[in-house]
Order: sequence, then C-alpha cells, then structure tokens
Amino acid sequence: MSIITILGAGVMGSAMTLPARDRGHEVHLVGTHLDRAIIDSIRSTGRHPKLNVKLPDGIAACHAEELSGALETADLVILGVSSAGIGWAIERLCETLTRPIPVVMITKGMHPEPDRLICLPDHVTAEVRRRCGLSLTVAAIGGPCIAGELAVRRQTGTVITARAPDFAQALCAMFETDYYHPRPSPDVEGVEICAAFKNFFAIGVGWAAGHLEMMAATENRAFNHNAAAILFDQAIREMMVLAQGHGGTAQSVWGMPGAGDLYVTCQAGRNSRLGNNLGRGLTYSAVRNGPMKGDTIEGAELGVSVAATLRSMIAAGKLEAAALPLTTALLDALTRDAALDIPWAAFHRS
Amino acid sequence: MSIITILGAGVMGSAMTLPARDRGHEVHLVGTHLDRAIIDSIRSTGRHPKLNVKLPDGIAACHAEELSGALETADLVILGVSSAGIGWAIERLCETLTRPIPVVMITKGMHPEPDRLICLPDHVTAEVRRRCGLSLTVAAIGGPCIAGELAVRRQTGTVITARAPDFAQALCAMFETDYYHPRPSPDVEGVEICAAFKNFFAIGVGWAAGHLEMMAATENRAFNHNAAAILFDQAIREMMVLAQGHGGTAQSVWGMPGAGDLYVTCQAGRNSRLGNNLGRGLTYSAVRNGPMKGDTIEGAELGVSVAATLRSMIAAGKLEAAALPLTTALLDALTRDAALDIPWAAFHRS
Repeated sequence: MSIITILGAGVMGSAMTLPARDRGHEVHLVGTHLDRAIIDSIRSTGRHPKLNVKLPDGIAACHAEELSGALETADLVILGVSSAGIGWAIERLCETLTRPIPVVMITKGMHPEPDRLICLPDHVTAEVRRRCGLSLTVAAIGGPCIAGELAVRRQTGTVITARAPDFAQALCAMFETDYYHPRPSPDVEGVEICAAFKNFFAIGVGWAAGHLEMMAATENRAFNHNAAAILFDQAIREMMVLAQGHGGTAQSVWGMPGAGDLYVTCQAGRNSRLGNNLGRGLTYSAVRNGPMKGDTIEGAELGVSVAATLRSMIAAGKLEAAALPLTTALLDALTRDAALDIPWAAFHRS
Repeated sequence: MSIITILGAGVMGSAMTLPARDRGHEVHLVGTHLDRAIIDSIRSTGRHPKLNVKLPDGIAACHAEELSGALETADLVILGVSSAGIGWAIERLCETLTRPIPVVMITKGMHPEPDRLICLPDHVTAEVRRRCGLSLTVAAIGGPCIAGELAVRRQTGTVITARAPDFAQALCAMFETDYYHPRPSPDVEGVEICAAFKNFFAIGVGWAAGHLEMMAATENRAFNHNAAAILFDQAIREMMVLAQGHGGTAQSVWGMPGAGDLYVTCQAGRNSRLGNNLGRGLTYSAVRNGPMKGDTIEGAELGVSVAATLRSMIAAGKLEAAALPLTTALLDALTRDAALDIPWAAFHRS
C-alpha cells in the first residue's frame, strides 16, 4: 500500500482514483484553484460532477491550499493538471515539496523550445531542479484512456514510461487491476510525442467525415472511410517522423501510445469535431467563433504552441519537410487560418 | 494506354475499372460463372447492381466463356475473384493463357500448407508454372479500399506489392489518379498477411462494441472505446508477429496494409458485425445459424482455413504462443465454438 497524492481533480486525474483505490492505496485528490466545485461535490456526496460517477470510498478530497498536508507523507504524486496548468503545478510543487517525491504525469503536451520540443517529464524535472534544487524522478502515462470509461472500470490499457525501467515497472505493478492494464516502456520521448500529437492528428482524420457532408450524395451512399484511412495512415507515418526526430522509437508510435490512442481519439471528442468542421470547409477561426466557441481543443492548442518550433526544425533540416505534409497542412490551418486542403498526392512518399 | 483484363466482376474487381478507365486504359471486365447477372446488367444499362453505380463508359463486359478473347491482346490481368474462387481462376488461366501476362491480384487470402502460410501471388505463380509451365509475374494490391467508395471516386490509398520493384512502380504509375493513390512496396509477404488478417482481427476489435450492450449501463453512459483500442493495438502487435514470421516487414504492418486497412475494416462490415455478436456472448455457430445466416464473413473463413497451420507453427515454435493470445482466442472461437473471452492480462506482454 502506498500513499498517493493526485494534483488536479479533472476527469483524468480523478479517474486514476479507481485503480489506485482498488489496489488499496491511500489517495489524496487535490483540486487546482479551478476545481473548487469538484472538490466540494466529492466531499459532500462522493460524486465527481464532470465524470458523472460516484468516486470510490476513502478518498481524501482537498482544495489547492491543502496540497502541503497532502504531500507530507506521499510516496507518489500523480500530476493531473491540464496542459495549460503545468506552469501552475510546477510552482505549487516548488513551494510545497520539502523532499523529492516520485511523480507520474498524466498531463499531455510538449514544451516548445526554439530548436526542439521538450517532453513534459523532462521539462518538469528541469524546472523543479532549477527553481528549488530538488531532483525528481518523473514518469508519464500514455495510451488510449477515456477517463469516463476508466471511471466505471471499463477495460483500459496504458503505457507508463520512465527512463529508469524499474520505476516504470514498479508503477505498473502498483496500478494493475483486472480492468486497468498498464505496461512499462523506457521510451519517454516516443510515448510523450504520441500522447500530445495524437490529438493534433485526430483533427486531420476527422476531416474525412466532415468533408463527406460537403460532397454530392451518391446513389450507393458511399462514405468517406477510405479517405479517413489514408489520413490515419499518414498520421502514424508523421508521428513516427516526429517521434524519431526527438529520439523516440517506432514501437511507441505503432503501439498503444500512437496507433492505439489515435484509434480511440478518432472515435469521438473535440479534436475530431474540429476536424469535421474543417472538412466542412470552415477555417479554424470560424470554428472557434462558431460551432465550437469556448471549447478547449487540445490538439489545436498543441499545434499552435509547437508551430514555430516545428517550422524552425523543418527549416533547419532537423525534420524532413517532404515527410510531414499533413503536419504542415494542419499547422497552416491552425496558425494561418488556411483552409485545410489535404495534400493527397504528397502522402506516403518518403 | 494498356489493355487490361479484369477477371471477376464482384465489387472490388469492378471498382478497379474506375482508375483504369480514367487513366485511359482499355478494359475488359470478365465475370465468373457466378457473375452472369452482373455482366448482363453492365451490358444492358452500364450499371453494376452490387456497387449500385453506373460504371465508366467503354468497358467491354464479358461472360466467363469469353475470357480467352479478352486475354488475347491483354497487357495485364487483374485477378478479382473471391478467396474461394482462386482455384477456379487458376484453372481458367491455365486453360486460356498462351503466353505469360503480368497479373495483379486483388483477391485476398493465404494458402495454407502444413508448416506455413503461402501468400496468394506465390501460390498462383507456383500453380500456373506447375500446371501449364508459364512463368507469371504476379503483384498484389493491399491497403484500405472499400469498393463502393472507389467506385464513386472517393480518395483512396493502396499499396501495390511485387518482388520486382520496377513492376510495382509501373503498376502504381498505371493507375494513379487524383483520387486513387497506389504506392509501391517490395514486401509481398507483409502486405498479403495484412490484407488477409485485418479481416480476422477486425472480428476481435468488434467484440468491444458488442460486449458493451451486455454490460450494465452506467450513469455516465460510458462506451467501450478503451477496450476497442486495446484490441486494435493487440491486433497490430499480432499481425506483426504473423507477418515477420512469414518474412514480412514491420512497415507493412504499421502502414497502409496493416493499421490503415484495419482502421477502415473496423468502421463497418461483416467482420465487425461477427465480432459484435461474439461480444454479445453468442458462439460462432450461433451467429452463423442466427443473425448472420448465409453471410460470407471473410475474416472467419480465413481463420478456419489457416487454423491448423497456425497451431502447428505455434507447436513447432515457429510462432511464439505468448505473442499471439488474441489470435489463439479467435481461432478457438471460430474452430472450436469457444466463447470469445478476451485474455486481457496476456496482451502486450512479449
């Protein structure tokens, strides 16, 4: 039995309480300043209002200002804030930690530096060391996991990645249940590139179903699945270029973190819906001001945040332009408000 | 401009008339003895009754007995019969061919020998040489292509594989249009294992949606997408073991022929529907005698035909048992009428 503090009471952080409690761990779920209503609800009724389920018994639900107490005896921190909240989380950890506690991240994203993308475990490790001198061991979870399904104990497979194989293995052993199946991986860069970019590429795959609505109906009522499959294939090819360009391996890309997670991300969700809308011929700004006003679209936010870095890596020859036609088209759609025209003939060429 | 004879007027053979005619080739579409009504319909109205579209103008539609004339000046044969019709097609070719004509196969399947599976291009080459002494050059097309979509010129990507790179390249150049994008590959075994087995594994992925119907509904209306993603991932892992065990490459498996085609196959179709029914708890015999009576289910037929060979390869250590838990469960469901119990804990282990 371990003592686990989850920082961030959003859907994914909170869903981790299921395998954690089912394996008998002591769980402190600490909300951010944005999670006050969630924490109050869990305290009073046990229910998580966004997951729309009653969480397991025995969770200590805490407000942000109670983080310090929740960390006092913790063996492990699960970092479950949103991508946008990572700076806030680093600040809180630096204020609060008095000793290094191992961290496992479920936050997805890449930290852009001018000449390369840094995966979040490395970013958190470096920032915490720089600011408060503590050396954290940071792992991350990738792979296909819809929080609402984990929260009702649906079969779920993930990959837990850490540079130290023993740490990844220990984390898997700590959370494995008969419905939650984490597998260890040493490929931090590959898993993290996939975790972030599967959302981005799901926008591309979503184009096909949206574009179908703009095409004249045919007598045989043909769908546009062949086109979606080309886009899915090209997404895997380009995730491989991006992963390998950052030191990741092919196996993460064709495995659970890449192809597996892209598969589930294309079944539903906001990234797909943005893609549908771009397929209908709307520009990204028109979608944001219209049908998806106010929505957080993770893949689009990622694209906007990494566009300058990726373009400069391509210009410097660190990433091959001819190998990234879908990436380029998506970046242009997200940052230059270009129509998303799919460059079919450029696919599968390099 | 080339002269192309398509043998088999089913949906896929007939859909190939679109890129063939759009590229200006002369096309002879020859039905099998089962295609008489299709050929008559094309002759009288131009319409293909199963594709439910009017085929391009200028196709010479021929009955089976007219094959000889259609082959007289042909530069290329497209072999478009069903898996079950491959023996019939070999017989017709041996009766009719007076010189070797290059062949490209769209027929999918594997020919089982006691100790390994032979891909159909090799089987056709060997049988024609044995029976009539002609040395054919045989290529094959794999990748995600729903015939009804190609037949209305939806964007479609495929892989054309041949041992001779020049031949694969020439075939791609012959059929490439602004909607049909074939890409060459030298990996005949890998492409053909994927072309055949993606149907088989789509049965496994389909389990998840069917099983969802058997589970108690949850307050948050959770789906079973996480489970489908584990199955999708495991399918890719096991296709890789099967492809590499027969001399194929990883790239075909994570590319268009494997992951791409599995993606499209999981969106709809009979293989998925069989999987849905197995997920509901029916046995294969119950499905065949009930909700899918009379349906041809390609992935199930493949599984039945290759089961003995795969089991003997596993027993002989040519394929690793621990790496094929989904394959084993599917074979048991198809040939021993076992319930399809998904061995979650055995996945992603080797």
